[in-house]
Amino acid sequence: MTASVPPPGPALAALLASRRDGHALPRDFYHDASLYARELATVWHGGWLFAGFAFEIPNPGDFLTLDIDATPVLVIRGDDGAVRAFHNVCRHRGSQICREPAGHLRALVCPYHSWTYSRQGELVACHGMHDGVDKSALGLRPVHAEVVVDLIYICLSASPPPFGEMRARFEQAGAPQGFDRARIAKSIEYDVDANWKLVWENNRECYHCLGGHPQYVKSNFDIVDEEHASAELRQEIAAALARTNAQWAVADDGAAHPKGGLATFPDADRDLWHTCNRTPLAAGYATESLDGTRVSTLMGDYADADVGVLRMRSLPNFWLHASCDHAVVTRMLPAGPRGTRMKSFWLVDQFAREGEDYDLARLLPFWHMTNEQDWEICRWQQKGVDSVGYVPGPLSQRNEYNVDAFIRWYLKQVRAAA
Amino acid sequence: MTASVPPPGPALAALLASRRDGHALPRDFYHDASLYARELATVWHGGWLFAGFAFEIPNPGDFLTLDIDATPVLVIRGDDGAVRAFHNVCRHRGSQICREPAGHLRALVCPYHSWTYSRQGELVACHGMHDGVDKSALGLRPVHAEVVVDLIYICLSASPPPFGEMRARFEQAGAPQGFDRARIAKSIEYDVDANWKLVWENNRECYHCLGGHPQYVKSNFDIVDEEHASAELRQEIAAALARTNAQWAVADDGAAHPKGGLATFPDADRDLWHTCNRTPLAAGYATESLDGTRVSTLMGDYADADVGVLRMRSLPNFWLHASCDHAVVTRMLPAGPRGTRMKSFWLVDQFAREGEDYDLARLLPFWHMTNEQDWEICRWQQKGVDSVGYVPGPLSQRNEYNVDAFIRWYLKQVRAAA
Amino acid sequence: MTASVPPPGPALAALLASRRDGHALPRDFYHDASLYARELATVWHGGWLFAGFAFEIPNPGDFLTLDIDATPVLVIRGDDGAVRAFHNVCRHRGSQICREPAGHLRALVCPYHSWTYSRQGELVACHGMHDGVDKSALGLRPVHAEVVVDLIYICLSASPPPFGEMRARFEQAGAPQGFDRARIAKSIEYDVDANWKLVWENNRECYHCLGGHPQYVKSNFDIVDEEHASAELRQEIAAALARTNAQWAVADDGAAHPKGGLATFPDADRDLWHTCNRTPLAAGYATESLDGTRVSTLMGDYADADVGVLRMRSLPNFWLHASCDHAVVTRMLPAGPRGTRMKSFWLVDQFAREGEDYDLARLLPFWHMTNEQDWEICRWQQKGVDSVGYVPGPLSQRNEYNVDAFIRWYLKQVRAAA
Repeated sequence: MTASVPPPGPALAALLASRRDGHALPRDFYHDASLYARELATVWHGGWLFAGFAFEIPNPGDFLTLDIDATPVLVIRGDDGAVRAFHNVCRHRGSQICREPAGHLRALVCPYHSWTYSRQGELVACHGMHDGVDKSALGLRPVHAEVVVDLIYICLSASPPPFGEMRARFEQAGAPQGFDRARIAKSIEYDVDANWKLVWENNRECYHCLGGHPQYVKSNFDIVDEEHASAELRQEIAAALARTNAQWAVADDGAAHPKGGLATFPDADRDLWHTCNRTPLAAGYATESLDGTRVSTLMGDYADADVGVLRMRSLPNFWLHASCDHAVVTRMLPAGPRGTRMKSFWLVDQFAREGEDYDLARLLPFWHMTNEQDWEICRWQQKGVDSVGYVPGPLSQRNEYNVDAFIRWYLKQVRAAA
Repeated sequence: MTASVPPPGPALAALLASRRDGHALPRDFYHDASLYARELATVWHGGWLFAGFAFEIPNPGDFLTLDIDATPVLVIRGDDGAVRAFHNVCRHRGSQICREPAGHLRALVCPYHSWTYSRQGELVACHGMHDGVDKSALGLRPVHAEVVVDLIYICLSASPPPFGEMRARFEQAGAPQGFDRARIAKSIEYDVDANWKLVWENNRECYHCLGGHPQYVKSNFDIVDEEHASAELRQEIAAALARTNAQWAVADDGAAHPKGGLATFPDADRDLWHTCNRTPLAAGYATESLDGTRVSTLMGDYADADVGVLRMRSLPNFWLHASCDHAVVTRMLPAGPRGTRMKSFWLVDQFAREGEDYDLARLLPFWHMTNEQDWEICRWQQKGVDSVGYVPGPLSQRNEYNVDAFIRWYLKQVRAAA
Repeated sequence: MTASVPPPGPALAALLASRRDGHALPRDFYHDASLYARELATVWHGGWLFAGFAFEIPNPGDFLTLDIDATPVLVIRGDDGAVRAFHNVCRHRGSQICREPAGHLRALVCPYHSWTYSRQGELVACHGMHDGVDKSALGLRPVHAEVVVDLIYICLSASPPPFGEMRARFEQAGAPQGFDRARIAKSIEYDVDANWKLVWENNRECYHCLGGHPQYVKSNFDIVDEEHASAELRQEIAAALARTNAQWAVADDGAAHPKGGLATFPDADRDLWHTCNRTPLAAGYATESLDGTRVSTLMGDYADADVGVLRMRSLPNFWLHASCDHAVVTRMLPAGPRGTRMKSFWLVDQFAREGEDYDLARLLPFWHMTNEQDWEICRWQQKGVDSVGYVPGPLSQRNEYNVDAFIRWYLKQVRAAA
């Protein structure tokens, strides 16, 4: 992801070399300002970032905006129906152009001097400039954009990583969920007082779930350590998985994942930064809700509730859990060395009506509660890793293989240089 | 302005060399902390700064205070009637002495240990010190101060730039307005979330006025591009200008400025950092008010309303618009790389009575509204120029000649070293 | 205190060399970020810090917590009754473990993954880890702790300075006060917008007391300059001191201090960072209260009120004033280059009952008012020393000998390297 980034200087190189295999990251990884700048340049400006949903902007001129740290980006559907992304910055004197989180525009008019861009980003008018200004060289700077199962991805890099493998995997796994026939029932933004890597490390293990998420763990087998589980439990999981996979199998390592625990992800050696898998729900759980009963009408191609939970993830900023009747998508954006801006979207079928087909009071709590539990965990971990007394400890080979995998993937991105 | 400042190091020198002619400034100019420190040392500590009005401190012991970034300054009228400025810092252990924005003092007594200074800054008592302390060496550190048409200017530098040319120009142009017979009807402070240069660049063009200031543009010809204006409009402007200048002409390039658009200012080649000119008002406008009707009694030497608008400016921190019946003076102070503290003062004749001769509800809106429109513009521009996607665009040779002039003047100050 | 800290680089070394003898510290000492980092490493991580009271944690499992800048520390009484301190950071992935300011625990369980430590800091359980994890190497990282007259001191350094001399001095002087038979009637935290050194410099002189603490100065002779005092006043002080010392004499320079002014402290040449002395109260003052009348029952071994005021101090973070009936202990913690977190504890006899033996409305004001007066002084001094116009002035040899002593002690700590 890091083609154009120069190699790190000696101080950063020493820091990047200081991680001990199989252990958590050293202290400075979680607050160093120059490392954070390098992370922006490599991971965040180099990778594919989930931005929003194509169904949010169905018509030409519909747009949504987001900020990657201090870099505002605009995603807009063009007159040709294509979804495009641009730097949300005027080519004249740099004013941010669109200031709303979402909306509809006939043209992109910078509020400062009325420079006017088409919905395809071309500069079409700059009245008041002198003669000879080359408008063709002053279109909005494009940002790469791709849409897969209605998920919009953007990449700020001039040479983005290949998207094809990800597209194939997400299309196969995600198609039945019917994201293109969904709508957002609710979204919630969270400002987390922790470095973004702490949020990912938290996401990449369920070692903390028994103590940290008493509601969540009832619904699934994430905390089961199959090697040490009873024969009965292993059988129960295998049966549930077989039943689910029989109908919705995905030709993917993740989807075929035989463990109750978390699918192995990411994989630095294989440069695997995206994955999908489907996991069974526990007995009595038709969906990820507090009491296990359904919270909305069925989504997508599903004819009954027995579809388990579709999970999709991509680094550095996306994960989702989709049940038969709703999906919860979470987007991460960096906000300084000690801050992360999270946003979760609760999706339901496009025709589901609030008050009739679903109630927010039943739809939201399962993940809103889990989210808030995790952000609190991350906040206190940030306080601990900021201490001069912090020494990185060993990662559990049984329960934190994915934290290790994340760290190895991360280090590869940040170290890399052309 | 920069006699005592060492040349920039290699990183800053590279940044200072990176501006492309005729274009906006590159990204780092608007948030780099070391550049901001250099701007303080050169532009802000080296230049003449408007501080306040002599009529605010008519009697010995009257004072006002202000902060240049983190440097508090005291302006006080001495027993001899002279206006002086001092570092508002005790020579003992550095406590700030005067803590009020304005007031009256018999002597300057530091609240910490009661070191006592005369109103001329001499240390007159330091009870509790040991014998042999040389009080004559421990007076308040002076700051250069000048007063011209009741405008108080200060300069922190040991060797301020010459003030004489500025004095001559301001006295000639400003005398009829009667600043020495004015008082402050109201002042308003604004914290602007933008680098101070963005505020100046905004001030130095009216290219944005048609879209940004729908009220303002009705009153004047600032947005007229004479080269492209109709013959009738050109004639109208010329007649209004002739009428105004016949009575109030100023022997100044600015005052004689033949365009409807903004007077050319500043001028880096001629080291011109101050200017005055008088511009006509549009038909139906007797003053800069929302409806064009007068908002107070006549000021100064004016016998009727037909005086156009006197405009005066000095870099780095002062501009004013004065109509027949009131004047609005704006002071800029830097407050970090991404912050600027603005203060506007609405002046009326010293004998004008609120409720009888003027109402704040009619006096304030024209410029308060224009101010707030501009600060919002600057805030969104700061967000844009902070983006990695920002690329400085071309400045309009027709409408942004003064932005270019400001940038060239600015670069000269910041690059310069003895 | 600074065994393991490398020598300062050239820029810091130049700053450290820039102080002029007998004068206040230069400007950058009060806000430079790299100096602050060095102060943390030397003064704050190298010295003995007052943390709290042993009587706050009487039983095994009782704990209290505090943060040294960003380093959280836990103080806990073990099963063997000993008071120990640990880095309050899990050895696994660094989460802060205890999050309450105080409480009781059967074991220390990290909320993240339930790693469980004994009250002696040993890792006793880490369920979910792989086989072969060496629990004996993963106990909580110890912090040195000592208890003297129920005052808990901690030191983050691997090789703390000797504690014995301090113990001897504090035990002799402090024993009669009965800290081990006290309780906290009230504690108040204060966030002071000033560098911690300004707070100490303020503490080390009473030159400011006449103007700054009109209530405080009535109770004692701190502001008396004996050299210049009348014969009668000198006699009055001597008599009061003799009366007090006859009963409570301490074989200490400080306690034997012959002046009405402040005892000489610290002493860089003798590496004296702790001291005790007893000073007489003014006529009409039985205790440090606003009206001089007692505010609680007698403490410790005292049979009548005529004990003067016991004063104890240790650098870098502790002072106390103890009267016959209460004691006020103040703890300092650094909070960034321009911030200091203060906490004062009002102690009374363990059996004193609120509403019967004491009222907070009478107990608190004397020192709470004095505290707030001082923090306001420090806040305005920070504003002054941040100015480019600040030049360090001479310290009064009569009234600021201890400020000079503090600065010399401080410079020795910060310069030192093994």
